[in-house]
Parts: sequence; C-alpha cells; structure tokens
Amino acid sequence: MSKNERKKIILEVYFDNSSTTKPLEEVINEVTFGMKEFYGNPSSLHNLGLKSEKKLKECREVLAKTINAAENEIHFNSGGSEGNNFILKGLLKSGSHIITTPFEHASILNTIKKLEENNIKVTLLRVDEEGKIDLNHLRDAITKETVLISIMHVNNEIGVIQDLDDISKIIRETSSRAKFHVDAVQSYGKIPIDVKKLNIDFLTTSAHKIHGPKGVGFIYVKKPNALVSLIEGGAQEFGFRAGTQNVPGIMGMSLAGKIANENMKDNYDKVLKIKEKFIEKLKNIPNIRINSLLNDSFSPYILNVSFIGVRGEVLLHYLEEAGIYVSTGSACSSKERERIGGSYVLKSLGLSKDEIAGGIRFSFSDDNKEEEVNYVIEILEKGLKFLRRIKK
Amino acid sequence: MSKNERKKIILEVYFDNSSTTKPLEEVINEVTFGMKEFYGNPSSLHNLGLKSEKKLKECREVLAKTINAAENEIHFNSGGSEGNNFILKGLLKSGSHIITTPFEHASILNTIKKLEENNIKVTLLRVDEEGKIDLNHLRDAITKETVLISIMHVNNEIGVIQDLDDISKIIRETSSRAKFHVDAVQSYGKIPIDVKKLNIDFLTTSAHKIHGPKGVGFIYVKKPNALVSLIEGGAQEFGFRAGTQNVPGIMGMSLAGKIANENMKDNYDKVLKIKEKFIEKLKNIPNIRINSLLNDSFSPYILNVSFIGVRGEVLLHYLEEAGIYVSTGSACSSKERERIGGSYVLKSLGLSKDEIAGGIRFSFSDDNKEEEVNYVIEILEKGLKFLRRIKK
Repeated sequence: MSKNERKKIILEVYFDNSSTTKPLEEVINEVTFGMKEFYGNPSSLHNLGLKSEKKLKECREVLAKTINAAENEIHFNSGGSEGNNFILKGLLKSGSHIITTPFEHASILNTIKKLEENNIKVTLLRVDEEGKIDLNHLRDAITKETVLISIMHVNNEIGVIQDLDDISKIIRETSSRAKFHVDAVQSYGKIPIDVKKLNIDFLTTSAHKIHGPKGVGFIYVKKPNALVSLIEGGAQEFGFRAGTQNVPGIMGMSLAGKIANENMKDNYDKVLKIKEKFIEKLKNIPNIRINSLLNDSFSPYILNVSFIGVRGEVLLHYLEEAGIYVSTGSACSSKERERIGGSYVLKSLGLSKDEIAGGIRFSFSDDNKEEEVNYVIEILEKGLKFLRRIKK
Repeated sequence: MSKNERKKIILEVYFDNSSTTKPLEEVINEVTFGMKEFYGNPSSLHNLGLKSEKKLKECREVLAKTINAAENEIHFNSGGSEGNNFILKGLLKSGSHIITTPFEHASILNTIKKLEENNIKVTLLRVDEEGKIDLNHLRDAITKETVLISIMHVNNEIGVIQDLDDISKIIRETSSRAKFHVDAVQSYGKIPIDVKKLNIDFLTTSAHKIHGPKGVGFIYVKKPNALVSLIEGGAQEFGFRAGTQNVPGIMGMSLAGKIANENMKDNYDKVLKIKEKFIEKLKNIPNIRINSLLNDSFSPYILNVSFIGVRGEVLLHYLEEAGIYVSTGSACSSKERERIGGSYVLKSLGLSKDEIAGGIRFSFSDDNKEEEVNYVIEILEKGLKFLRRIKK
C-alpha cells in the first residue's frame, strides 16, 4: 500500500502486549522517585548505600511474596533473556542433559544451540497440535545425566499453558538430580505461580511484560543452589550477578509486580472477555485457524490466529496503517521468521505452510478495551478481502 | 561511636562519585519521557517498534560521536560489569593468553579467575608505586597466543591514567593478532577518548558513573569483529546481545554522555580545583600518603589518601556521621577488602600494611563545590585526632 492510500487512523489499538507493555504511570513515577532518592550504590558502606540496599531488600520481599518465595531467593538482573541464559549456562556442563520444548523463547533455544557445541545433550519434547507437551515423553526422556528441565509456562506466541504441577511431579518422581526451570516471562503477574507448591528450582521473569520498566527482571533461585555466574565481578545479588544494581528500575519492577499480582483476577477476567469477544467475531471470517483456544489450557492474554491466504507480515502492515499494532510472533525472533517463512512455534505444532505463513498474534493487557475488538475486526475483514483478492 | 554521640550534620558532602553519581535532572526527565513515548519494542515490526528502533539509532549516533566511533560500533548492555564480562568471555578460548594489570576492576579480575579454570593463560603487568604499568613488561609479555590486552584507562580507586597511546603502539608493533580492550568506566565522559586514533578494539562504559541511569552501559566494538555472545537469544544489538533493549535507559545514557562530553573541559577544570585545594589542605595533616598525585598522570576526579594509624572503614563511618560520603575503594570489591584487610589496588602498588589499611577514596563530580573541601578537612582533622588517639 503506498503512502497515498494511507488509511485514516480512527483508533489506536495496541494488541502487542506480549512484545512489551506500556509502563504504568505509577511505575514511571516510582522509577523517577528512585532516580532522585535512591541513587546511592547499594554496595557503598555509607548511609546512602545502606538506604539503597534496604530498598533493594524491600523490593525483594515484595516480589518474593508474589510467588511464595523467600526474600533471598529473588535475584535481580537485566531481564528475561539474561535470566534464561544465566540458568542454562550456569547449570549445564559438558555431558549434561537438558530437556525442553521445541517452541521455547529464542533465549532458551539459541543458548542451547551454543551449549550443544560444548557437548550438552538436548531433548526437545514432542508437543501436540495445541501445543501441550507430551508428558510421557518427558518421563521417558529423563536420564541420570538430566540436570535441567526447562519449560515455558505460557508460550509467548500461542499462549498455551503447560501444566507445571504435572511436569514437576514427573520430574520429582523420576529424578533426584534434575532441576526444574520455568520461563515465566509471559505468565508472571498474569497467572498464579507458587514456586514452593510447584517445587520449582528456577523461574525467569521480566518487568516490561507487566507494565514495568525495560532492562530489568528477576529470577527465583531456590536455596540452596549452585550456579556459575554469567556476569562475574562484585559480590552483588548474593554473589551470583555482578554489577551495580539498577535500584530505580528494580523499584519500578517491584511496584509493577505488586500491582499485577493484586489485580490478577480482575485483569484476567477483563482480557478473557476481550479474547472471547474476538473469537466470537472471528467466526464471520472464513479460512482461519485459531491457534489459541478458548479454554483453561490457554492464556487469555494471547490470541494467535492463522489467516490462510495472506502473509502475516503483510496483514500486520495493513493493520498498522489503521493504527492497530500486532505481531507475527515473538519480537525477539522476527529475523528467524523471515528466514523460515513464518513462526517456528507454529511450525512445531505441525501446522501447514499456509497456516504458518498467515499467523498473527494479538496480545492483550488490562489497558485494552472490548470496543477495540470491533474496530480490529472491521479492519481485519476489509484487509483480508483486499489482500486475499490481490493474491489470487 | 554510639548513636548518642551522633554529630550534627552541617553539610552533606557526596565524595563517592566513582561509586555512582546522582542522575542529572535532564536525564531523569529523558528516562521518564522515554518510558511514556518510546515503550514500543524496537524489534516489533510496526510503527511503535520502528519509532523505538529509530530512537535507538539516534542514541547510538550521539554516543558514537563522543568517542569517534561509527554508529554500528555502539552496542548497548546493562553496564560496565556486563561489558567487561562480554569482551573477555566472548574472545578468550582455551589456550588463549590475556595480558592485564593486577588492579583492574573486579569484573575483569574475577572473570579472569574463572577463565583460568578453562586453560586461559594470564599475565598481570608490573605496576610502579604510582600505578603506571611497566611498558617494557607489556612488550615482553605479548606472545603469539596473546589475543587480548585489557587495560583500565583510569583506575577506579587511585585515578592513575594509563597512557593508551603508548600501550596501543606497543600492541600494534608487537602483534597482529592481539586485540586492545579499554575499561573506560571511570574515564568516559571525563577524559577525551578517540577510539580510532588510539586504535582500540573494545571499550567498556557505564552510564551511572556520569550522572546517567543505572543498569545501562555501552561497549564500543570495532568493526569487523567476532565475539561470542554472553546473552544469546534474539538478534538485538547486531546479533551480539539478546534481550529487549532498555530504550528509556539508553535515552538517558545518551543524554548523560552528550552532556558529559560537551562539558568535559569545564568539569575537568572544576574538579581539578577541588582536588588541588584538597591536597593543599591535606598538608596540615600528618602521617598520610597521597595515592593520587596532582599531575597529568592522574584523573582529577579521584583522590585516594592513606591515613596511617586508622582503619579506612572506621574513618569512613566517622565521616558519614558528619554527612560526608566516601569509600575505602571500589564499591564492587568491599567484601574482598574485608577479607584482605584493605584494597587490593593499594596492595598492588606495594604500599605498607598501614597505608593499605588506612586508604580512603574521595571521588568528585561537577556536582561538588570547592567549599565542601573545607568542611571535609575540618571533620577529617577532628576525626583523625580522635581515632588516632583511641588507637594508641
């Protein structure tokens, strides 16, 4: 579409909340407050340092409570990718075996590719066409060399929720050695997580997925645990992660985490209604595949749909011209998708080439309104008619 | 000193600017602006993503200009410790040889310790009692296996400036293979750096040392260059560093870098006057060793003094009670100092036990005022009389 044909933007709709969210006003204020009042280096021995260190501890306590962890099990870092890299690289040694899925985030899959060069053995679990992992395969795959099972709680592209309870039980029944890592970047603050109940060893989160600041995240590390640091240097973060802590960012994350967890139920219900309405309205659109079902096995925050007969990226830009922001999958894998002609997540479900090529992810937050769905459907219908016609 | 004897705080003096600095008001506003307006994920394909990506490019351009680099040679990360870890771990392989100094930052020295377990060979250069490295030793130490020479531009504890020009020339004359890494965390924005003229391959910086936000830094990576990523995943930062970029933080750093470089000369002159006055007034205090001389070989931003007959940490807390914030060395190494009874940096200069134990670092910024020196000297004199007496 040329610039001359540019559509008038009637409404701006941000349906790309799994890529990143808009920070809350309160969070922005908290970060600002932190930059003004808590600039002391938490490792400094004087009052200004102690003030920052105390604030860090408060933040750890707030976040620990949200997942039923202890304060000293919360380690701050720069976000989800660092968290995932740290757990994998910090635990796996030559000869180790890791079990994961074929549709983890790039920060897991690409780290594993690198680790395979160092004699790490990998099992990718079979997943069914809905994205549920094969639990029998998991049980069979665990060996004496298995040191880690790394599972994404909510898949970032299709929103399927893995049953952490079942997975955890299988791990504990089968191995006394294997640790359980959960990539909770898309679930933290949206779906309840109790690390003790679920017997989780490591959990990765990211602040900017829950209206927090970018460049900050935390990992839960069950005590006691030995991990090799990814970033060596000072003794920050219980000796596990060197570097002056980003106190203002951590304060922002702590507040975002608190708010998200306090409003979890309301937010869940709100986005569920949006997803329900969206799926209801999609019934009028022919030739689609809904890759994120409307049941308890899927997060309401994500709705992935394959529009057969169009390329997802073309549809994305059509929607964008109308002020609607969506994605064709994980922002972190956009180059990978160019290479293979669509999402590797959809591919791993066994979808057809056309279904993979036409995949679009709509991802919601409590910022969104049900009315926005009407506008998106209207534009989608127009766009699909136009794009499917010119393709013929 | 008990709480009852607590001194009245007449003036608050922050002389711990090498640990961290207070963010500029403009920087705080820029981060806030970034969080409000540039929250889109730079890897997203839609307008909001492109807007953030464009902003990142602008920031790269601004920062590149400050060190005479190209825009695509600026890689963003979470700060100095990550930068140093990335360069060392990304370059060194089994059998590699690295040359560095005995008084680098913990994020270099502790990384090297870890790498030594993987058959990395290390040479620590001899340094004289002022902290200048022995250039003949450097020349002799370079072998065919040497892949990296890593040198701190300005030492974080004593402020000695290494002559990068001489070092670079020796490296280029002696080896066609060895790369030159400069840890510029304490010099960037304070002392001119021209990476092309100095023929530097890698350079580490951190935003929070120059009134920028915490949790963000950049490294200069000369093109073309092959490095193994520390954080794998998405293709962010030219494929070298995965993870959604912290756009607001980067905007803050970019502004802080611009302001620091624009005001470099004025700031330099200002802190030099503070250091001059401080050293002048120290003449009345007996039994001290000034570890940061008043000449071109030392940064005016740092004044390290050994107060013989007291323990640095005790003096630090005495000063703190009067509202004066200093340090006994690098904030990142405070636990290490407890272990060895003082700073490893002072130890590497060959100082006596008493000189090491009594070390205090005063570190300045353009926030400081000359008048503050009077107050600090007054408290220092009182404190030393008191503490030296009770020690006898």
